[in-house]
Amino acid sequence: MKSLSVIKIGGNIINDHKTLHHFLAELSQLKGPKILVHGGGKSATQLATQMQVPVQMIDGRRITDTATLDIITMVYAGKLNKHIVTQLQAEGTNALGLSGADGNAIVAEKRAVTLIDYGYVGDIIQVNATFIESLLAQEIIPVFCALTHDGKGQLLNTNADTIAAEIAMSLANTFQTTLYYCFEKKGVLSDIDNNNSVLEKIDTQTYAQLLQDGIISEGMLPKLNNCFHALQHHVHKVCIGHTDMLFTSNSTYTTIQL
Amino acid sequence: MKSLSVIKIGGNIINDHKTLHHFLAELSQLKGPKILVHGGGKSATQLATQMQVPVQMIDGRRITDTATLDIITMVYAGKLNKHIVTQLQAEGTNALGLSGADGNAIVAEKRAVTLIDYGYVGDIIQVNATFIESLLAQEIIPVFCALTHDGKGQLLNTNADTIAAEIAMSLANTFQTTLYYCFEKKGVLSDIDNNNSVLEKIDTQTYAQLLQDGIISEGMLPKLNNCFHALQHHVHKVCIGHTDMLFTSNSTYTTIQL
Repeated sequence: MKSLSVIKIGGNIINDHKTLHHFLAELSQLKGPKILVHGGGKSATQLATQMQVPVQMIDGRRITDTATLDIITMVYAGKLNKHIVTQLQAEGTNALGLSGADGNAIVAEKRAVTLIDYGYVGDIIQVNATFIESLLAQEIIPVFCALTHDGKGQLLNTNADTIAAEIAMSLANTFQTTLYYCFEKKGVLSDIDNNNSVLEKIDTQTYAQLLQDGIISEGMLPKLNNCFHALQHHVHKVCIGHTDMLFTSNSTYTTIQL
Repeated sequence: MKSLSVIKIGGNIINDHKTLHHFLAELSQLKGPKILVHGGGKSATQLATQMQVPVQMIDGRRITDTATLDIITMVYAGKLNKHIVTQLQAEGTNALGLSGADGNAIVAEKRAVTLIDYGYVGDIIQVNATFIESLLAQEIIPVFCALTHDGKGQLLNTNADTIAAEIAMSLANTFQTTLYYCFEKKGVLSDIDNNNSVLEKIDTQTYAQLLQDGIISEGMLPKLNNCFHALQHHVHKVCIGHTDMLFTSNSTYTTIQL
């Protein structure tokens, strides 16, 4: 089975022009089919502030009202997505920017209102793997921003980590799929105050132990749950760390496998 | 040869929510492969005003500095393009939003500075017809916004009329291609003050006569030049008028053929 890399990049790469360009140049050298997924929270917050749209966050999650959705659509699908695609083209790499509405790539449903009304936030129902495969077959890198749609005319703000996991899962029967979560740290840390305490391997057993010992930080929990969910749905492995893990053979990062 | 419709919609449709939805619902009923091209000047001007970015126009053309290009990218490729795609999906029509950078679809070069520096404005060099055909073969409507790229990392603001014409030309050897320019009037008028004075047919000979008699308004000249340029490059015919011309068999509009 052919290998596929699904790579999610976060704010630490997107927010810095130079870091982003360096990353995209290196990515263009990487062989084999790949898919890029990006968020872009900080830029959206900047534009919201500039446009005097109040930013409402609960537990680190953005409340997405109509005005906020407009801003996210402009920043994620417009400014950031087109910037990434244009830079990849300049590196000689054919790329295509997508929201979940484009090519009906990712269908979601609006999150039900319980104690908190998150607004226009989507939980993914289906990924159109056939369409994504057709792009990969044309040697195009699909570049997804953190937006899905409900198939009824509504765009929905959707967590980029989850988008990456769901895309990886949808292609896991066609490709040997590795899911890369790139963030500001070198990996999952056993001591949150020590950036060198990277746990290099986590499997089901060690994960249960880490949870029992209370070693996994609260911010890392949803990410790791995404990882195991993906692995249970035939994703080959998940790697968490710096972008170095993609390009440098001897770098330290966390590999998660069942 | 299979028929193809390349449809350019202007501000009169895009700026009004209800008109746009009505148009997209009707478009979804229209059989056969089609491509949509949109601008969106008014929304860009609104956002520029809101963000206190000065709008500079010379002879009705927007001067595109870095801040303006950011705004255009957010509005054209983000807000408007994703809105159109999401609504088409809701109508059960598979659509895909694109700038010229996506799939390397349209390559342009930055306009040389002569008396006026238009800034980041592009003149089209090449359309990637193979890629567009691959989308049409998947029964996807490509939805292009008015942005191209130079292949060296720069997005470029590009006239939507010209984009539509160049796309039509690039596919004219594969499809019997009709180019539709939809705008606020019923067609090319022989008397600019009389909306019912629609010229129903224009060919090379009548066009020469109209020019000689000074009947074509200044605003219409570049559009008609685009039309004849397209016809000379094997586009089957060009139609100018209300969107009615696409959906109603007995409507009045202008047909241009060599």
